[in-house]
Amino acid sequence: MLFQPPQSAKATVLFGTEHELQCMLDVEAALARAEARCGIISNAAAEAIASHCRADLFDIPALSAASTRSGNAAIPLVAQLTRLVSAASSEAAGGVHWGATSQDIIDTGLVLQLRELLALMEETLVQLSDILAALIEKYADTAMAGRTWMQHAVPVTFGVKLAGVLDAVLRHRERLIQLRPRVLVLQFGGAAGTLASLGNRGPEVTLALAAELKLAAPASPWHAHRDRIVELAAFCVLVMTTVSKLARDLALLSQTEIAEVAEPHADGAGGSSSMPHKRNPVALASILTAAMQVPGLIAIIHVAAFSQEHERALGGWAAEWAELPVLCITTQSALETLVKVLDGLTVDTVAMRNNLGKSGGILLAEAVSMALAERLGKQEAHHLVQQLTVRAAETGMTFRAVVIEDATIQQHLSAANLTDLLDPANYLGSTQHIIQSVLAAYRAKGGR
Amino acid sequence: MLFQPPQSAKATVLFGTEHELQCMLDVEAALARAEARCGIISNAAAEAIASHCRADLFDIPALSAASTRSGNAAIPLVAQLTRLVSAASSEAAGGVHWGATSQDIIDTGLVLQLRELLALMEETLVQLSDILAALIEKYADTAMAGRTWMQHAVPVTFGVKLAGVLDAVLRHRERLIQLRPRVLVLQFGGAAGTLASLGNRGPEVTLALAAELKLAAPASPWHAHRDRIVELAAFCVLVMTTVSKLARDLALLSQTEIAEVAEPHADGAGGSSSMPHKRNPVALASILTAAMQVPGLIAIIHVAAFSQEHERALGGWAAEWAELPVLCITTQSALETLVKVLDGLTVDTVAMRNNLGKSGGILLAEAVSMALAERLGKQEAHHLVQQLTVRAAETGMTFRAVVIEDATIQQHLSAANLTDLLDPANYLGSTQHIIQSVLAAYRAKGGR
Amino acid sequence: MLFQPPQSAKATVLFGTEHELQCMLDVEAALARAEARCGIISNAAAEAIASHCRADLFDIPALSAASTRSGNAAIPLVAQLTRLVSAASSEAAGGVHWGATSQDIIDTGLVLQLRELLALMEETLVQLSDILAALIEKYADTAMAGRTWMQHAVPVTFGVKLAGVLDAVLRHRERLIQLRPRVLVLQFGGAAGTLASLGNRGPEVTLALAAELKLAAPASPWHAHRDRIVELAAFCVLVMTTVSKLARDLALLSQTEIAEVAEPHADGAGGSSSMPHKRNPVALASILTAAMQVPGLIAIIHVAAFSQEHERALGGWAAEWAELPVLCITTQSALETLVKVLDGLTVDTVAMRNNLGKSGGILLAEAVSMALAERLGKQEAHHLVQQLTVRAAETGMTFRAVVIEDATIQQHLSAANLTDLLDPANYLGSTQHIIQSVLAAYRAKGGR
Amino acid sequence: MLFQPPQSAKATVLFGTEHELQCMLDVEAALARAEARCGIISNAAAEAIASHCRADLFDIPALSAASTRSGNAAIPLVAQLTRLVSAASSEAAGGVHWGATSQDIIDTGLVLQLRELLALMEETLVQLSDILAALIEKYADTAMAGRTWMQHAVPVTFGVKLAGVLDAVLRHRERLIQLRPRVLVLQFGGAAGTLASLGNRGPEVTLALAAELKLAAPASPWHAHRDRIVELAAFCVLVMTTVSKLARDLALLSQTEIAEVAEPHADGAGGSSSMPHKRNPVALASILTAAMQVPGLIAIIHVAAFSQEHERALGGWAAEWAELPVLCITTQSALETLVKVLDGLTVDTVAMRNNLGKSGGILLAEAVSMALAERLGKQEAHHLVQQLTVRAAETGMTFRAVVIEDATIQQHLSAANLTDLLDPANYLGSTQHIIQSVLAAYRAKGGR
Repeated sequence: MLFQPPQSAKATVLFGTEHELQCMLDVEAALARAEARCGIISNAAAEAIASHCRADLFDIPALSAASTRSGNAAIPLVAQLTRLVSAASSEAAGGVHWGATSQDIIDTGLVLQLRELLALMEETLVQLSDILAALIEKYADTAMAGRTWMQHAVPVTFGVKLAGVLDAVLRHRERLIQLRPRVLVLQFGGAAGTLASLGNRGPEVTLALAAELKLAAPASPWHAHRDRIVELAAFCVLVMTTVSKLARDLALLSQTEIAEVAEPHADGAGGSSSMPHKRNPVALASILTAAMQVPGLIAIIHVAAFSQEHERALGGWAAEWAELPVLCITTQSALETLVKVLDGLTVDTVAMRNNLGKSGGILLAEAVSMALAERLGKQEAHHLVQQLTVRAAETGMTFRAVVIEDATIQQHLSAANLTDLLDPANYLGSTQHIIQSVLAAYRAKGGR
Repeated sequence: MLFQPPQSAKATVLFGTEHELQCMLDVEAALARAEARCGIISNAAAEAIASHCRADLFDIPALSAASTRSGNAAIPLVAQLTRLVSAASSEAAGGVHWGATSQDIIDTGLVLQLRELLALMEETLVQLSDILAALIEKYADTAMAGRTWMQHAVPVTFGVKLAGVLDAVLRHRERLIQLRPRVLVLQFGGAAGTLASLGNRGPEVTLALAAELKLAAPASPWHAHRDRIVELAAFCVLVMTTVSKLARDLALLSQTEIAEVAEPHADGAGGSSSMPHKRNPVALASILTAAMQVPGLIAIIHVAAFSQEHERALGGWAAEWAELPVLCITTQSALETLVKVLDGLTVDTVAMRNNLGKSGGILLAEAVSMALAERLGKQEAHHLVQQLTVRAAETGMTFRAVVIEDATIQQHLSAANLTDLLDPANYLGSTQHIIQSVLAAYRAKGGR
Repeated sequence: MLFQPPQSAKATVLFGTEHELQCMLDVEAALARAEARCGIISNAAAEAIASHCRADLFDIPALSAASTRSGNAAIPLVAQLTRLVSAASSEAAGGVHWGATSQDIIDTGLVLQLRELLALMEETLVQLSDILAALIEKYADTAMAGRTWMQHAVPVTFGVKLAGVLDAVLRHRERLIQLRPRVLVLQFGGAAGTLASLGNRGPEVTLALAAELKLAAPASPWHAHRDRIVELAAFCVLVMTTVSKLARDLALLSQTEIAEVAEPHADGAGGSSSMPHKRNPVALASILTAAMQVPGLIAIIHVAAFSQEHERALGGWAAEWAELPVLCITTQSALETLVKVLDGLTVDTVAMRNNLGKSGGILLAEAVSMALAERLGKQEAHHLVQQLTVRAAETGMTFRAVVIEDATIQQHLSAANLTDLLDPANYLGSTQHIIQSVLAAYRAKGGR
Repeated sequence: MLFQPPQSAKATVLFGTEHELQCMLDVEAALARAEARCGIISNAAAEAIASHCRADLFDIPALSAASTRSGNAAIPLVAQLTRLVSAASSEAAGGVHWGATSQDIIDTGLVLQLRELLALMEETLVQLSDILAALIEKYADTAMAGRTWMQHAVPVTFGVKLAGVLDAVLRHRERLIQLRPRVLVLQFGGAAGTLASLGNRGPEVTLALAAELKLAAPASPWHAHRDRIVELAAFCVLVMTTVSKLARDLALLSQTEIAEVAEPHADGAGGSSSMPHKRNPVALASILTAAMQVPGLIAIIHVAAFSQEHERALGGWAAEWAELPVLCITTQSALETLVKVLDGLTVDTVAMRNNLGKSGGILLAEAVSMALAERLGKQEAHHLVQQLTVRAAETGMTFRAVVIEDATIQQHLSAANLTDLLDPANYLGSTQHIIQSVLAAYRAKGGR
């Protein structure tokens, strides 16, 4: 497609064909070394093999073309590698890929890619935490309309709104740490998961190979048990839950009539081919586009993981190849874009204050009701205030004006009382406490 | 990704960036000519513009890079086109993209691509029909086990099994014809669908532009109404319903223990990096992989189509760009692969006959039961035969043997009767009639 | 679940267990009569059977409980029916369900339900068309902000916005008419689709049964070919595309700061347990909730339809039972709710006008640019106006003020010109034409 | 729907309307007590409220009906509760629901349900582990065909096949323990998450309420941050990955021609309305049906969680209400069904041995190739054996026969060598080690 969405440069490289190939070759090299360590092949053979495990020696288009016929990329890779090694040593060539099956190489190569991805995501989640923490501190007291059902509700602050986001981001960081050991695990089982090709040497080679790659050795091969991969994918979608929520909020706050925030405006970005005035929120749009994609992408990964016949599947594995990298790149890209948006976010605190006022004090209906409840009882107070809001709506008067005029109210609340009650700054409840709790959790994870 | 699934060469070109660009340029050229016809720009300007609407004049990587910032590909395309035309005529440059908005160009360009896709799909559906019809005729009488709940049920023929498939393919061809006029429709609305940029000339230009492109002119622009596109996507998934069903059946019939069919074996295809004997059904696997992807892909298109705010959406349109071509290519590729598989399918009619026998005549339990029902009443007959199947299972005898020995049966059915009843060829019911009905429908659509 | 979303009363009854049972019984009754017509059972037996095919004679909880063990609802239904008929005539009891398989009854029963659903949807789509047409006429000239990327773009009218919706609704009505004959089709194939249980009488009984039920007779049974059902489901989702789009727009227009529309406020609806002032748009929310559900629901139906092994599937059929009725009820309910919302919609044309003004004339930037383009060339004009919009943003002045003051502008456009250009009513382009085209299409389908 | 899939009795009760209501009432009771502890309401009021928080005092149909109008179930619940308490004490009535918002009650009520669900799932996962461990030990040495791409590959044992499943189940148990503290968290934020209604008493009441309910107190309310819920849903789908994989394998192994396993046959289960012999695998089918549903269900939950506007969402929350309980019940039911299937599984070790033989020794092609590789080099050996497999296929001879006859083979391998090589029991590689590793991990988690 001509259009190129904003993409994480690092994630794009990480899942690019060259790096994918290199990760698979790293596994072949490690396998040779592990088998040399176990005395299955000679050290010389291992080094001859390892020295050819460099992506730049390979013909990627030929590999891709051959993969179509063979049904996976490891078969032609092994063939090319064997040819390369043969030229140096025919003995070594015989040791290439010894005892392994294609899926061992492809899955473990993927795990090496995912190790880098998790490092990258972790770094970006930390960055996101830092920026959120700074914004929370800056806007801790900045009152704005709280909105529920897309309607004014009661006042919040911009800081507390973002504190909810930071709290979720901290949960994602905790999840990442917990899932990492389940994902960063060697795949090594041979043709059908028994390592029969290695006779009784399977366990020994497994441990040596895991050590070479600094991965955990699994109790059993997981060729047809894709929950490790699905968990990683599900983590991406969990992260996108938060990313999508915040991007949607910012997009809503950017609407012309509300205009409380604006994404940073890169030169030339977000113009229109027809309307000269346009500065479209292209970064937020790209995040929301990503958010529309990931539920469908993980659905594919789920369906594929559910269709794992016997020892190795028919068709269910390849669907993962196509969609998992897209899901990972899409998530990491959206995450990085969100960091950029927040980093350069324009926050219009005047607009926030003005919008608070736009509903004529109605955001404080609950405040008035709670104050009256102490005198009238909760239900009667709720009922009275509800009637006043209806009167405001019907007469076109502000709620504030209606309240001040009302005889019953006057009986129970003094003018000073009312002035206090109708000031949003006085109806922020536990805002500060929530912010401090979240910031404390943030700092407990090493934040500034 | 290194691995390259088998892909339709034509569909890949059709949705390749160069052709995508050319389709957009075809729209710009047609717009210039239409506006010249309406006297809005000069004929000379139109021809100057049209002569530069050639993809080979454009810098595709630069376009892609710029599209990220602008949020779509049309904005940089218009900029490049304007520069190219400027060099020839500054007056003509002023007429480039006159009155249009980016989405007019992108959507109509897509419609031009979809016109070719529909032609390609139609052609492949016809090929599929022809191959199915030939196989149906060839195997009309070839009895095999009918299977329900993945268990032997009653006999069918391979021909009638495929007749069900052909019948579905004929429905798809009918659907294609019906949806075509709803999909092949011009998009032209300007900035917010009012064509205000053309003053009162909008309707006139719309008609001229539609005529240039041989597309229908819509009653209203459909920028934020994506049902035309979703319908096309839904059609792809409908077609995949049939493709997936048949591929799954063939994969099941290819299992080592069943081995009634085998996909054609291209040299070097389907080998294993560890097991020398392997001839994996890679073509069927690729179809099943495709089948796992399309429900997730259309789910994305649905979510995007549902999120079309106001006159043109924030984010919901771009998700379509990413997924629709993948869905179309995936479907057309699976369709072509299925045609190849059927074209070279090995059908082992001996295995079919042998497998029919493997369940010891149990496939004819219903036949015996129906024959007895005329004497004993349906319930009693059903009950008796059920007991005989249980006895067969418990004793390890075949159902056939148990039936022949049973005293009650002997009372009601002669040995000759039983021999007839226990021959699968005598229990094929309306098979021939169904086959002839489907072939008649096929011929009514122009089949041989 | 305690919470009950607003649901179509008719659709709920239609897919209720009692009506589901009655539809299956209608098929059994018709089968008996058809077989009597063909001389397979006696007329007396047929009438004895048919007279017991009344849902009120059946024990629904027992049926449900037994269905769990048998794997479908038809098996216990046939057992109960046989018992009921037995009491009247043991001969007739032997004719119950003669030659049919469970799926014949369940699928055809479903088709009878879908026939009613399609009638209901058609009726509601006509109602929706009528209300939209009336609103379009009423608000044809009511200018409001056109919004793209959730930002002010150029003016539109409320009428033309709704014309896009009506145009889509008319497409849905066309689709419904086209798919109906593919959906309203008898299922009748016996155990594995060969009707072997009827010997050579299958075709004859098929025709008689189809005639009894006023359904089309298919060329082949479609037990494992679910495209007919998927097409109906896809149609529901297509309809929801339009329903969701409009509900989202109305929710956005209902936001406190925008407040151009409000859904009708049923007494007691949309309150809050804490905030006395709340009038939440509960009807729109329920439509949007429905819209979030249907893509996932159809994804299930797709996956199920793709997993149709051999003659009748293992597991893939039952997923359809669970999700299809939910999808149908959800769609029809959302459709009816939308009709109610539109029927009582509060439209605040003053707010529309005020909001148009809120962006300080920037909605007319394109208008100024197009006017200047005739003097300065398109690019120069676009560039100049873009600079003016930047100046407006930077100075806090309105675009209107900046334009009027600009020296270059003054050179080319008179004050009167500018006044005209900056009036939204003068920049509505083809709005009237579009509205008239859509209304003409509406009337061509029988609208007032 | 008439058909009732097999459902976990406990899960059904747990998510039934009565228990749902009771959980919400438990929250209201705890809130009253917590506020009494904080001195906000009197102890007497708290006890008056708590004593009415019993589901059997409530009119559930009326609640449901009223919930449609109010948009959630808490509003009418609070109204009913207030009326009940009023009758006892009007002072206490004023304290009902003090300071809370509907979502606080609904979400925390849900968390109480999920606490029970997690306990139930944990118990069932332990049961599943125990049954798997017993089967693994019993069938540790039972050789059977390993199958990849749905074709015979190399031998495995039934024990090692199940060891892979147990290993995955142990991972699920680990995940459950890790996610529990993120899910079992109080929701308490008031109207827009600031607890303004409680003045400065919010934090104090939060802690007291969490203590009453034995839930963790969150750093911030999570009304619009649904990742806690999504994580639970994702866990269900992860569990289903394993459940679906095993059920699919068992269904494939149950096919008539393979028949290595059979699900337990409850009396009357799995019959056919037409075929007397049928014993359909209805339990496995129900698991596979569930597996087709959950990816679509979680897709809905994802889309809903992504659409959480501002402080509390419009529509995005209600989609969760509808789908989460279905997802939870579906998962737990499939899990329990799988336990039952395994518990009564018929394993036909003779069929396993026979099927191993059916491919004429081809499963040992790799064994022969690895043995030859030590003499001929890996590539030459692979090539030679591949040719022999082709010869076997072409001549119809068994691979075994072809190998024994081959001159080159005879040169390198003695007859005794070959006999050993062609015995599946000698080509099981690390099977025992893998089994022991998995069983050790199982015992480390407290297994027998």
